[in-house]
Amino acid sequence: MPNMINRQMAIAGIPKDRLEVSHYQMREGAVPEPGEGQVLVRTLFISMDPISRARITGQPGGLQIGDVMPSSGLGQIILSRHPDFKEGQVVECSPGWQDYAVQSAGALSSFTRMGPLNHHLSVYGVSGLTGYFGMVEAGAPKPGETVLVSAAGGAVGHIAGQIAKIKGARVVGIVSSKEKAAWLTDTLGYDAAIDRTAGPLADAIRKACPGGADLYFDNVGGEMLETALTCMKDHGRIVICGYASQYDTQTPETATKGVPSVVLFKRLRIDGYVVMDYYDRKQAARDQMAAWMKAGQLQVAIDQLDGLERAPEGFVGLFNGENRGKRMIKVAEEG
Amino acid sequence: MPNMINRQMAIAGIPKDRLEVSHYQMREGAVPEPGEGQVLVRTLFISMDPISRARITGQPGGLQIGDVMPSSGLGQIILSRHPDFKEGQVVECSPGWQDYAVQSAGALSSFTRMGPLNHHLSVYGVSGLTGYFGMVEAGAPKPGETVLVSAAGGAVGHIAGQIAKIKGARVVGIVSSKEKAAWLTDTLGYDAAIDRTAGPLADAIRKACPGGADLYFDNVGGEMLETALTCMKDHGRIVICGYASQYDTQTPETATKGVPSVVLFKRLRIDGYVVMDYYDRKQAARDQMAAWMKAGQLQVAIDQLDGLERAPEGFVGLFNGENRGKRMIKVAEEG
Repeated sequence: MPNMINRQMAIAGIPKDRLEVSHYQMREGAVPEPGEGQVLVRTLFISMDPISRARITGQPGGLQIGDVMPSSGLGQIILSRHPDFKEGQVVECSPGWQDYAVQSAGALSSFTRMGPLNHHLSVYGVSGLTGYFGMVEAGAPKPGETVLVSAAGGAVGHIAGQIAKIKGARVVGIVSSKEKAAWLTDTLGYDAAIDRTAGPLADAIRKACPGGADLYFDNVGGEMLETALTCMKDHGRIVICGYASQYDTQTPETATKGVPSVVLFKRLRIDGYVVMDYYDRKQAARDQMAAWMKAGQLQVAIDQLDGLERAPEGFVGLFNGENRGKRMIKVAEEG
Repeated sequence: MPNMINRQMAIAGIPKDRLEVSHYQMREGAVPEPGEGQVLVRTLFISMDPISRARITGQPGGLQIGDVMPSSGLGQIILSRHPDFKEGQVVECSPGWQDYAVQSAGALSSFTRMGPLNHHLSVYGVSGLTGYFGMVEAGAPKPGETVLVSAAGGAVGHIAGQIAKIKGARVVGIVSSKEKAAWLTDTLGYDAAIDRTAGPLADAIRKACPGGADLYFDNVGGEMLETALTCMKDHGRIVICGYASQYDTQTPETATKGVPSVVLFKRLRIDGYVVMDYYDRKQAARDQMAAWMKAGQLQVAIDQLDGLERAPEGFVGLFNGENRGKRMIKVAEEG
């Protein structure tokens, strides 16, 4: 596409351990032409997804230096060569960290607009749906149960925790600062919150969950999962939704102490959970969350940074626990 | 009790790593008098239960040198000071490795005699019930599913595997020798059997379970569990029934690689399972197994050694995979 510049945030280095802003570099490239059956989108929002970190391995099959950082997001179609998609339409897509991207029709999803556009990358997007189905269907807390949520102020966790509360559970969140802990209890309605940096985690969980947790909704893995295992009630359930503690390293460790011993003695149930398995019902989930929002029962936290150039700092900050709710980058205004 | 000698097999040493026959020593002691509400039993059978190995820690709270080795078993009441129990009655009890034991009434269970006495320590006892409820209720295989069983020729495994077959599953067993593998397929009706000593386990499982296993019934833990995780179908289920690989050591390792990563990607479900949770229905389970035995669908393997003096070799042999089916020691003939 002549006379258009495509800013691209590309990988400039492979981390030895933790990811840094210096591992990215902005460049300018050409805007590609869509082929038959494809569209050209202008990137409006890109999603900051911690799991993407795991693709920066430097190994064959992983991302390489020079690659544009991949990302899901929202884009507006500015040129369509597919009959199902019109110019001007905003779609869910995977533009990556760049201003423009060619996308095949199969990579696009239309959606019914339900509110501000950034809600479609948060509460109505993958992270909100992950919190919804993870709690409503995989975790399925009963009224009066104690539900423990890790990364409880994150994109998924803050939704999951509030839904547990709506379902009548007593909800305890684990976060990485005193300020976030206060936010959980004062703003989001958690019954208790643990700042994991404040002292021994097992003691804090036992204090906040007298008698143990019935359900642990885990986004973190690692030592937090190991500790939580020992704090479960007999017959407790654990939903494995993510293991963020092992994303920002070149040497992830996903061996968990207490499996199988504690799992056996306590008769625990552990379920691996992936939201895509529930996607046939995603519109119903969005409608339910919209109703809860309207009733004041569900609050959506969006942590939005403006400008493609801020993507590296926004992404790296995820691994320092900077974000409250869903972090995203606004790249351009809807036209 | 005057004029009676009580042979007792006591702990004579704490193993540095693996248990040996030399860690036991026979001694003679007095036969104790039962108090009010107690009975004196003569030991008829003692059960060889691998998990008991874990109590020989040398640590406070564990078994100490000089202690009689504890064990469940069957005993005949020779003196009763409780109205509910009569002299001559055979009961389930926990006599330990000795000829006579005083037992409180609360430690005794009456049972309906259903066949030879040793069936009450095998198919109708804890191990048989563990195989039954573990497969019928915790595992619950559907017809056509592929079920993988570890320690498949053991006291629990050989029952669990045959029940999976009765339920219409395709059943694959893992054992520790070529001979046992042949026994599984030729005698017990397994569809396939893997000798884990014959080569890389993952390759053997993948070959025996094309497309992966739907259900893994795990008695072993350790590397076998880690390997099995990678051989499961998406949405596969794992029942944690035991972790025998970690019993015969002073430094058990129960950290499992692939938890949570593989559990998440494959959406696996892991359930810790303890048979006692199902004991309200144990007689119905025994009746069902009796019917299957009568119909020729369920074979009971009993690995019986005669004589209290053989308890140490019988027990140590469990950890070398010597036994086929339920190993027990016959201490005395029913009087």
